Amino acid sequence: MRNKALHVHTFIGCEEPYSEARTVLFGVPFDGTTSFRPGTRFAMQAIRPDSYGLETYSPYLDKDLEDTAIFDGGDLELPFGNTEKVMDQIHEYSLDVLMDGKKFLMVGGEHLVSLPAIKAAYEKYPDLHVVHIDAHTDLRQDYLGEELSHASVIRRCHDFLGDGRIFQFGIRSGLKEEFDWAKKHTYLERFSLDTLKEKLRGLKDVPVYFTIDLDVLDPGVFPGTGTPEPGGITYKELLDAIIKFQELNQIVAADVVELSPQYDPSGASTAVACKTIREMLLTLVD
Amino acid sequence: MRNKALHVHTFIGCEEPYSEARTVLFGVPFDGTTSFRPGTRFAMQAIRPDSYGLETYSPYLDKDLEDTAIFDGGDLELPFGNTEKVMDQIHEYSLDVLMDGKKFLMVGGEHLVSLPAIKAAYEKYPDLHVVHIDAHTDLRQDYLGEELSHASVIRRCHDFLGDGRIFQFGIRSGLKEEFDWAKKHTYLERFSLDTLKEKLRGLKDVPVYFTIDLDVLDPGVFPGTGTPEPGGITYKELLDAIIKFQELNQIVAADVVELSPQYDPSGASTAVACKTIREMLLTLVD
Amino acid sequence: MRNKALHVHTFIGCEEPYSEARTVLFGVPFDGTTSFRPGTRFAMQAIRPDSYGLETYSPYLDKDLEDTAIFDGGDLELPFGNTEKVMDQIHEYSLDVLMDGKKFLMVGGEHLVSLPAIKAAYEKYPDLHVVHIDAHTDLRQDYLGEELSHASVIRRCHDFLGDGRIFQFGIRSGLKEEFDWAKKHTYLERFSLDTLKEKLRGLKDVPVYFTIDLDVLDPGVFPGTGTPEPGGITYKELLDAIIKFQELNQIVAADVVELSPQYDPSGASTAVACKTIREMLLTLVD
Amino acid sequence: MRNKALHVHTFIGCEEPYSEARTVLFGVPFDGTTSFRPGTRFAMQAIRPDSYGLETYSPYLDKDLEDTAIFDGGDLELPFGNTEKVMDQIHEYSLDVLMDGKKFLMVGGEHLVSLPAIKAAYEKYPDLHVVHIDAHTDLRQDYLGEELSHASVIRRCHDFLGDGRIFQFGIRSGLKEEFDWAKKHTYLERFSLDTLKEKLRGLKDVPVYFTIDLDVLDPGVFPGTGTPEPGGITYKELLDAIIKFQELNQIVAADVVELSPQYDPSGASTAVACKTIREMLLTLVD
Amino acid sequence: MRNKALHVHTFIGCEEPYSEARTVLFGVPFDGTTSFRPGTRFAMQAIRPDSYGLETYSPYLDKDLEDTAIFDGGDLELPFGNTEKVMDQIHEYSLDVLMDGKKFLMVGGEHLVSLPAIKAAYEKYPDLHVVHIDAHTDLRQDYLGEELSHASVIRRCHDFLGDGRIFQFGIRSGLKEEFDWAKKHTYLERFSLDTLKEKLRGLKDVPVYFTIDLDVLDPGVFPGTGTPEPGGITYKELLDAIIKFQELNQIVAADVVELSPQYDPSGASTAVACKTIREMLLTLVD
Amino acid sequence: MRNKALHVHTFIGCEEPYSEARTVLFGVPFDGTTSFRPGTRFAMQAIRPDSYGLETYSPYLDKDLEDTAIFDGGDLELPFGNTEKVMDQIHEYSLDVLMDGKKFLMVGGEHLVSLPAIKAAYEKYPDLHVVHIDAHTDLRQDYLGEELSHASVIRRCHDFLGDGRIFQFGIRSGLKEEFDWAKKHTYLERFSLDTLKEKLRGLKDVPVYFTIDLDVLDPGVFPGTGTPEPGGITYKELLDAIIKFQELNQIVAADVVELSPQYDPSGASTAVACKTIREMLLTLVD
Repeated sequence: MRNKALHVHTFIGCEEPYSEARTVLFGVPFDGTTSFRPGTRFAMQAIRPDSYGLETYSPYLDKDLEDTAIFDGGDLELPFGNTEKVMDQIHEYSLDVLMDGKKFLMVGGEHLVSLPAIKAAYEKYPDLHVVHIDAHTDLRQDYLGEELSHASVIRRCHDFLGDGRIFQFGIRSGLKEEFDWAKKHTYLERFSLDTLKEKLRGLKDVPVYFTIDLDVLDPGVFPGTGTPEPGGITYKELLDAIIKFQELNQIVAADVVELSPQYDPSGASTAVACKTIREMLLTLVD
Repeated sequence: MRNKALHVHTFIGCEEPYSEARTVLFGVPFDGTTSFRPGTRFAMQAIRPDSYGLETYSPYLDKDLEDTAIFDGGDLELPFGNTEKVMDQIHEYSLDVLMDGKKFLMVGGEHLVSLPAIKAAYEKYPDLHVVHIDAHTDLRQDYLGEELSHASVIRRCHDFLGDGRIFQFGIRSGLKEEFDWAKKHTYLERFSLDTLKEKLRGLKDVPVYFTIDLDVLDPGVFPGTGTPEPGGITYKELLDAIIKFQELNQIVAADVVELSPQYDPSGASTAVACKTIREMLLTLVD
Repeated sequence: MRNKALHVHTFIGCEEPYSEARTVLFGVPFDGTTSFRPGTRFAMQAIRPDSYGLETYSPYLDKDLEDTAIFDGGDLELPFGNTEKVMDQIHEYSLDVLMDGKKFLMVGGEHLVSLPAIKAAYEKYPDLHVVHIDAHTDLRQDYLGEELSHASVIRRCHDFLGDGRIFQFGIRSGLKEEFDWAKKHTYLERFSLDTLKEKLRGLKDVPVYFTIDLDVLDPGVFPGTGTPEPGGITYKELLDAIIKFQELNQIVAADVVELSPQYDPSGASTAVACKTIREMLLTLVD
Repeated sequence: MRNKALHVHTFIGCEEPYSEARTVLFGVPFDGTTSFRPGTRFAMQAIRPDSYGLETYSPYLDKDLEDTAIFDGGDLELPFGNTEKVMDQIHEYSLDVLMDGKKFLMVGGEHLVSLPAIKAAYEKYPDLHVVHIDAHTDLRQDYLGEELSHASVIRRCHDFLGDGRIFQFGIRSGLKEEFDWAKKHTYLERFSLDTLKEKLRGLKDVPVYFTIDLDVLDPGVFPGTGTPEPGGITYKELLDAIIKFQELNQIVAADVVELSPQYDPSGASTAVACKTIREMLLTLVD
Repeated sequence: MRNKALHVHTFIGCEEPYSEARTVLFGVPFDGTTSFRPGTRFAMQAIRPDSYGLETYSPYLDKDLEDTAIFDGGDLELPFGNTEKVMDQIHEYSLDVLMDGKKFLMVGGEHLVSLPAIKAAYEKYPDLHVVHIDAHTDLRQDYLGEELSHASVIRRCHDFLGDGRIFQFGIRSGLKEEFDWAKKHTYLERFSLDTLKEKLRGLKDVPVYFTIDLDVLDPGVFPGTGTPEPGGITYKELLDAIIKFQELNQIVAADVVELSPQYDPSGASTAVACKTIREMLLTLVD
Repeated sequence: MRNKALHVHTFIGCEEPYSEARTVLFGVPFDGTTSFRPGTRFAMQAIRPDSYGLETYSPYLDKDLEDTAIFDGGDLELPFGNTEKVMDQIHEYSLDVLMDGKKFLMVGGEHLVSLPAIKAAYEKYPDLHVVHIDAHTDLRQDYLGEELSHASVIRRCHDFLGDGRIFQFGIRSGLKEEFDWAKKHTYLERFSLDTLKEKLRGLKDVPVYFTIDLDVLDPGVFPGTGTPEPGGITYKELLDAIIKFQELNQIVAADVVELSPQYDPSGASTAVACKTIREMLLTLVD
């Protein structure tokens, strides 16, 4: 007992050493381009202790974190006020993990953190496809002049992925021109996930990255986020989607972003993030 | 730059001057007869800044506030402890706006504010019909002896509108005698909005006033209100109703009431109010 | 006026003296085995004043608390740090009420409080059946070595009830071995209440005890609880279940547990508990 | 046990029946003229349960509530939106208590509730003097046209008490004209209680009413109030003042007003109110 | 009435047009380099409405905002994630105001906003001296590699002001090397403001800029800030300091920074900021 | 990088391995006998991340955590509902640390956790003296029949320490009989720490254990605790006391208890705990 901590503060059930791990969980406490309400930097700090309110076993997937090999890598330590340096650090860590032959689940932070992680996945898997579940289009060319913005992240991914690689679901907010742009360059389903199952069928054997902005959920279920957008999906609908992900053969990495725990003092939003992370980890371990 | 404010604090996209405006938005920070938990006086104070978390474009109605002519008139400045004077001030402002040939969207405050606004609309449009969406009947003859009460507001409207003019939806709370009284004097659908579409068909060409008490929503979606009543409708159901309003030809005014923002520190309830206001403003601009 | 209090703080509509009452409401402010987030001890303290935000009339059941004979017995005063003594006090009070020919509705507190109450009901009604509505299995043999735990309460009930007497609904969290154990010893429906109606049919004429852990509800509806578990049922689904309870002929007692009001500053969770208590009281008065 | 409640919810140590009591505690849940942030209606609802976090014994006064005869009369049930009726009900109850030969401690609600209570005390004791401890002058002739306002309450008392009867301490906010008016009509000490001891000496043998607006305290100590005004006194300074009150021979009644518990989720403001009430009750029992 | 807003949302008593104003108030909603807890971007949004809980008259200075000519310029609209652009915008606006012969009071935002404002003041007044009241040294050469940081702001001011121009008071947190550096380059009083009066004497006739980081106050008084540091000064001590500022003859501008209103749901911290702003505005109008 | 966590979550500056450490920090998340408001179990979970809002350097003691050898041992993992087992686990760990020749700082949890830790210190140092800083006497023989209670902890320590070994300061709440008992068996200063310096002189060369219940602080400074008791000391007074501790030659261990972080959403109470822990760690490192 004496030469180690009494209790290790990882996400529940993720205590494998890096070298043995098949999957790596890590946090990115960055909210530097958040335009409305910041706070996603605190997500992982809330998620780790609250994950102990969950069981390690998922009755949905009939799998248990105890039976997996996941390393909780902690959080990147990032500078403040310098977006480009932050992008570089995320990119470097993501690429290292992939190059070591592991998958990763990154937890934001704001949505811009997905850009360097998807870039890294694309560098390893040039045929990468991205499934994007969100309330917002995130397709702006820039936001108040800045091209690196949480409101532009998917547009920036398109810069290198190109047409036909991005599949967006649940979208219910954006500029008119973003919806128009999407018609030509991405697949975009408005308001719901109804066509997800069908679209996944086409992605069965290509490398896929999932980016889940939790604000796709109705704010009734997930109020703890920077830009709550009423009219979202239920948690059961999100769970059903994740169950469908199991059909794919090449999920290479994923992220879960936009929990701002301090806006929801009940902890229910953090519980939503924890459960989504558990289900996504169990999805990534195969 | 020097002779004007750096940033004007109106509701998003409502910066038309009064003289050019077709529609007027104004706030009534009154909660003087609230029997349980006060605080609706703070609604507009929360709504204006938080409206910038929304886009001006509605993908539901495919309309944009940027393409409309709406004046945000600010808030009435009201005395405290004198309900009758408050009623007079609301009535005067509402009537002025209508007499200038404009429509209005009033934001409460508590539900009693609808009484003088509906009265004004009735004075201009004697054939006025009222669509009332709410958790509560609001049909008491009086509350602890007071006839001017948020629990009596629709009954007071009936005093001048009479039978056959009031259509109530979503109602799930009231005295037994209120439900009984409604059977003879109003149309009242319990628990849901299922018959709304059919009833609107009959109102297609008469002047209609919409009064939306946001507590019709389930408290899971809208906890920031004085009297949360579990078992309400989802936000998608409310949105669907508003989409159906577009069929009408003579919407003359509307109100959205009963946000008490301080009861929901997450801001999700305020987001619900903001989005409902945006959709209702876009409904009123035609 | 002078020899009595100005306003009596009971649950709304429960002012019958004990001797005349047919049904007894009482609170058990105990959260001593709560493993994650304590606070259910404050439930009744929040419920009583907030019950005045409700009406006494239920439009769902078309019954009114004003027409019933219910005694609000207040709360048990319990020691701290001694679980066995707490069990004894609950057992004694529950049994007294039943032996006086009355029914009871107990309000927790954490779920362990159900154990001595169900024991008391079983002592009076040896053929007792239990309907358990919850997010969690509560079937552990022990929790960190303690056999008296909120995570073991239903398992402890099985110790004396035996197989075939316990019916579990809405369960979405537990150890794999709990789900496996349930297959042999209880009826357990995962995730929803879909089979409740059918199962109630078989319980029509036997003595039944209902134990409702409010965390069966989705945390969007009921965030004010110690262990929020996303993906739960809606409040309308719970209401529908309670309406179905009316078919039974021998409901002998019930409990409603696991409100932790301080985790939901909006009061919406407390409103959920209040309304559920009203409906359950109206269920118990027949 | 069976014919009474398990636990009576009075203020701690105040369980004497009215007929035997020497002192009466009662609450007035009124905030109808509050101009800034309402919520004092909830004060007593928070104070009663939280009083059990206190001991009944005061080491400052070396007295114990257990040795006194105090009746907790509950709260007045008041109409909403009709200030004059509220004034009448408070006046009637206050006068009844005094005419029965008892003293009272009234707990607000907002400060306007002191007006009818002081009026009642003046009717029984025409030589009444008032000691007013507050952050605000409360000497406006009217507020937005209303003469019955929390900002006018001491001015309204002056209407019948006249010059030389009102002693104000701790005042740090008001209109310039209120400070000027006070120079001629009341004794007013700005910012502190330094002259209190000396002034009390002159009041030793006349009937005195204490009205304590808790916002005299620094918001650091007492943030749970409608209009926090930085730069106030410490709690030790208020305690010292109350200790000095013991020198007086004719304290006839008192009030403690302006706790708005919901603005202070820590409960520290409620604890301040509870302790002040305990000390004032022990001051009134002699 | 019809061609203007019903109620203009400026800071209380600051409704002079720019052209007539002697003093300009403006907000800078920037928290981009905040390392611990963001949220100062919301300061002005909370301050303006809450300023109406104050009076316009200061009994400390015996001056009234109603007798002054102050323009509330609103808030700068800033990009996200690009610190240098933000610095430029603040600098440009500050310099414009000074060049128009007016003084300004800037409200943050985090402390880094002081850098461009002090730079502008220095450009107009090359003999500028800075009085810095704060809990933190703010003298780091860089923070995680970034030279533009709230933890470096006074060090960056020293880059152009040089030795002998900066006077720091109330400092109680910093690196050992910052305290050491200060010994050679600034005047720094630890823990209190005791030497302020004496130091001000030497600044009587030189141009002075005041930068007040409100976290100099004890967190008991001012919890609503990003980095609360226990052991600070009382509000009366800060008020006394501001009263002493009146002796100076050349106060050219000032700022008040680091309110993060969302961390203090009581609003007491916002009240502290409002009152400080009122006193500072009354200090700047001479 | 790849075989270790990105960021280790210890208390700031406490990253020494156990074997090299001179001092051990550990947490005890226990609140099982808390009678009023539970939640101290969450203290360490809030303290560790918030400690990064502090610097490692103390300008009060002119010492730096970076120059020390402290191991953060994490938290004990404890059963629920079994007070005796909890006592045993704390006792075992505390004794192990002392027997390894190290000092410890234990962080509660509620005050009962001090009992087994003081017992362990007493077993190693039979001449142990205890300095107890608290708002409450904690001298009850039992609480509702339980002898192991946070309200009895110092009385239980007296059971083995005997007369003349316990020095209590700042006490302002208790039963009359506790104050009376103290006169014979402990040294007890009411309300303040004024005699601390003098008493420490007598303890200069004996083994001393400090137990600091943070509720000795005024709730204005430290609202985040189970039983806030107004009228406490300021943070500067507590700091001054800790500075005086440096005079002692045999401090063997210490504890800091009763932070309940969730009652203070501002985090100011957690900051108070963090700073106190930093100063106490620097006191314990010699």
